[in-house]
Amino acid sequence: MIVPIKWENGKIYIIDQRRLPLEVIWHECDSYMEVGDGIKDMCIRGAPAIGIAGAFGILLAAKSYHGKDFAMFLKVVNNAASFLLDTRPTAINLKWAIVRMLNVLKLLPQDVISQGISKCQEILEIEAVKIMMEDQDLCKKIGEAGKDLLINHNHTQILTHCNAGGLATGGWGTALGVIRSAHESGLKLHVYVDETRPALQGSRLTSWELQQDGIPCTLITDSMAGFLMQQGKIHTVIVGADRITANGDFANKIGTYTVAVLAKTHGIPFYVAAPYSSFDFSLASGSQIPIEERNHTEVTSIKNCQIAPEGIPVWNPSFDITPHKYVSAFITDMGVITPPFKDNFYNTFQKLKSITT
Amino acid sequence: MIVPIKWENGKIYIIDQRRLPLEVIWHECDSYMEVGDGIKDMCIRGAPAIGIAGAFGILLAAKSYHGKDFAMFLKVVNNAASFLLDTRPTAINLKWAIVRMLNVLKLLPQDVISQGISKCQEILEIEAVKIMMEDQDLCKKIGEAGKDLLINHNHTQILTHCNAGGLATGGWGTALGVIRSAHESGLKLHVYVDETRPALQGSRLTSWELQQDGIPCTLITDSMAGFLMQQGKIHTVIVGADRITANGDFANKIGTYTVAVLAKTHGIPFYVAAPYSSFDFSLASGSQIPIEERNHTEVTSIKNCQIAPEGIPVWNPSFDITPHKYVSAFITDMGVITPPFKDNFYNTFQKLKSITT
Repeated sequence: MIVPIKWENGKIYIIDQRRLPLEVIWHECDSYMEVGDGIKDMCIRGAPAIGIAGAFGILLAAKSYHGKDFAMFLKVVNNAASFLLDTRPTAINLKWAIVRMLNVLKLLPQDVISQGISKCQEILEIEAVKIMMEDQDLCKKIGEAGKDLLINHNHTQILTHCNAGGLATGGWGTALGVIRSAHESGLKLHVYVDETRPALQGSRLTSWELQQDGIPCTLITDSMAGFLMQQGKIHTVIVGADRITANGDFANKIGTYTVAVLAKTHGIPFYVAAPYSSFDFSLASGSQIPIEERNHTEVTSIKNCQIAPEGIPVWNPSFDITPHKYVSAFITDMGVITPPFKDNFYNTFQKLKSITT
Repeated sequence: MIVPIKWENGKIYIIDQRRLPLEVIWHECDSYMEVGDGIKDMCIRGAPAIGIAGAFGILLAAKSYHGKDFAMFLKVVNNAASFLLDTRPTAINLKWAIVRMLNVLKLLPQDVISQGISKCQEILEIEAVKIMMEDQDLCKKIGEAGKDLLINHNHTQILTHCNAGGLATGGWGTALGVIRSAHESGLKLHVYVDETRPALQGSRLTSWELQQDGIPCTLITDSMAGFLMQQGKIHTVIVGADRITANGDFANKIGTYTVAVLAKTHGIPFYVAAPYSSFDFSLASGSQIPIEERNHTEVTSIKNCQIAPEGIPVWNPSFDITPHKYVSAFITDMGVITPPFKDNFYNTFQKLKSITT
């Protein structure tokens, strides 16, 4: 299984996704700052994966403290949390994972604290590894929940945007998790992969993952999705999500909204696959999600090759918002959620509450 | 004025558009085959511009004949015509210009033929130059016809796709011709430029042209157009066309259809600017237009930088078809044509018939 992050012998390694598919290079991260820079620079990316990285960043910060003062220890960890939270604003999973790590510390009983800092570090390590392993499990559940949507309708021609695969999660993937589970169940499917400019997660990562798994696929530019649908070649669209709000609006990689509009125009189901950690019910609707704007050179050059005139103004939002009316269903680890989303989120996540509290 | 092709001292020069915006290099073409290769390799591109290049290709073939046998001369020219017609199938202007050149020969009176081959070559030269100069004039007329659509509604935020500028025509441009004419009339406009993958005509050519002319613009990836429209930042879309059929369906650069769907979804006017030479009434609808598929490396690499896994399957149609229902109006050298297109094409091109016969 393709995974983007490993915890081995007390060290965290992340695959440098900027260099895929040409080179598979694992970086050892020695500090939370290195992890933060890796998130910022998209060495590691994908909402669930940056959540996992954030958790390990907190762990590295905790492990860097060699003193005995619990208050000072907390300060070091909280400092790291602020730094890590600032790296990328849109995906909620980063915040979710960091808060989860901090909550572990907050809820430590006094008798555990009094066993010393190393005990606290040990507990944080268990939590970070749990977040990572749990994410793989969530993806498998998403895959199981979603695969029947494809199999029951014999929907074999699938479009996906960006990379919501193993590389974007703890392994298996969300959107690609559904595709992998359907493939594993014997559905003969064919995946059309949007290249996903500017950072090319589709051409560099998704097509590479599918190739590795022997799942038939075809690479297209983002601009070709409409023509493909017009020709009846797409049965279903599945994408991931960086943040889903209370009404079902969601943020995902720039270009997702365009694909959603195209799917609706052509009467094609449009599914969003995401774990419960991508839901943010503190926001009522998508307009409240902060949208990260990234460096202009992502648009004006590709791999250091300049492709636009010097000094040309650029707009480079890294995500867009897709209103809930475009979503046929959310495929989650807790099952498939159909409209009306507000009500059905409530019904579904009542169960969640009993899990997380 | 930016022009892509020059005829100077009996020689044809074309600007190598593959190397823009980093280098401005003019190639001298010595033979029709060089012109054909230049069209095929997109050294010169844009429907009206390849029509002009095709006409000069015919001229170069004609000039390469140094004998005295008119039948042999015709054979040489017809051979070149077949070669040139085969270079790119979608834009009708290439065929239109070549047929126009051949018709000049077909209609030569016997007394002119008897003045010798050099006289025939001279007449062909006049016709090729006329096609080029006429195209500039057509673009200016398109600009005049279309600018009021922007000015009257104070539509200042304009999205365009690909390059329908001076580089795609004999100068001034079709879609950019409308924008230039409105700008020249004092409208304070701002152009959003889709980069237009895979060949990047937007980032490399359109943004360069606008920068040269001091027209404010912002470069985006193709995947950002939807989000831009969702935010109310686009008032109008204007694109060019490679071939327009009798019912108003048209072919244009891949991605145009997606932009048209987005425009309709957001209630934004969608205009197609093109000269009469881009209309092909021999075809009833867009499904009959041949769509060129180009080399996969256009998608898997950019400027020799590989961006996808080795051996990944690719679909690379160079154009798509936009059904007429998405078109608010065609902006032509004969005025603005609104729906119902079939009837209004007839009314408009009745006039044309009296011009061309």
